[in-house]
Amino acid sequence: MFKEETIKALLRDVPDFPKPGILFKDITPLLAEPGARKMVVNEIAAHFKNLHIDAVAAVEARGFIFGMLIAEALDVPFVPVRKAGKLPYHKLQEEYELEYGKAAIEMHTDALKSGSRVVIHDDLLATGGTAGAAGNLIQKLGGVVAGYSFIINLAFLPGERVLRERFGVQPHYLVRY
Amino acid sequence: MFKEETIKALLRDVPDFPKPGILFKDITPLLAEPGARKMVVNEIAAHFKNLHIDAVAAVEARGFIFGMLIAEALDVPFVPVRKAGKLPYHKLQEEYELEYGKAAIEMHTDALKSGSRVVIHDDLLATGGTAGAAGNLIQKLGGVVAGYSFIINLAFLPGERVLRERFGVQPHYLVRY
Repeated sequence: MFKEETIKALLRDVPDFPKPGILFKDITPLLAEPGARKMVVNEIAAHFKNLHIDAVAAVEARGFIFGMLIAEALDVPFVPVRKAGKLPYHKLQEEYELEYGKAAIEMHTDALKSGSRVVIHDDLLATGGTAGAAGNLIQKLGGVVAGYSFIINLAFLPGERVLRERFGVQPHYLVRY
Repeated sequence: MFKEETIKALLRDVPDFPKPGILFKDITPLLAEPGARKMVVNEIAAHFKNLHIDAVAAVEARGFIFGMLIAEALDVPFVPVRKAGKLPYHKLQEEYELEYGKAAIEMHTDALKSGSRVVIHDDLLATGGTAGAAGNLIQKLGGVVAGYSFIINLAFLPGERVLRERFGVQPHYLVRY
């Protein structure tokens, strides 16, 4: 049975990373516990298994770690969403705002079959900037944003509301702060 | 049963990436085929399952994708090896040579129990620069390099020999070019 407290006990607070004033949620202790990892994947897969999911797209780099396990549990294709310049083949790019300046992510243009229902996974939901850009890319590639999956939701930031309003789906997450 | 040809058929050649003259091996078609993915993971896990492996360490970012599946199949901790500046907690850094200049990877100092027997995974073995640096880090953290796992070995480059001579293990890979 899923226990939020078990997962929270394996998330380490690191103050002032990546910069002063940010309390970083470090997932590496969770990655070191096979039993807790299974609990995470089983809980996420159970949520999505009857939602006719055709693919899991995950955001580089931490999103790859559980993203592939979720794709495996759902028995569907895994689609990497990468930082600009990393994917080798024909690709589409989407920019998004950072606190200062911009960043961009990319997907291969042949990553999705038309109409594919995609779950987008990342480890942490904050402002929703990266996750929203991934959703935009999936729509531009002819896919459907069927859901969002996160381990952690930083509920004092607007990501959950932003994604719900933009894509009409309630983001799924396992623990919130 | 494992078939090298099945995997090779799902690796896409992309010429002149990341720069002119390089023929890049793109694993994204393989990631989109759940059956072939399972074949990959089963074959790697079968090779390592009786070698008393305590942890799988994988190199950011593509190494994370199959690295976590291998850790899951072996039921052991997953340890991320990241580019400099990405890990949040106390960490150790190792530099390695690139064609022009240097790069560095890092691991958390608490990532391994002393004496842990570690398999290092990445998708592709070329010169062995990154993989060798990961092995050095694991030794400095008190671990043992129990093996190397790759999907692809570019056998016209010296990585296989470099790792065998430096760490005394025969790197394991599924396809070679």
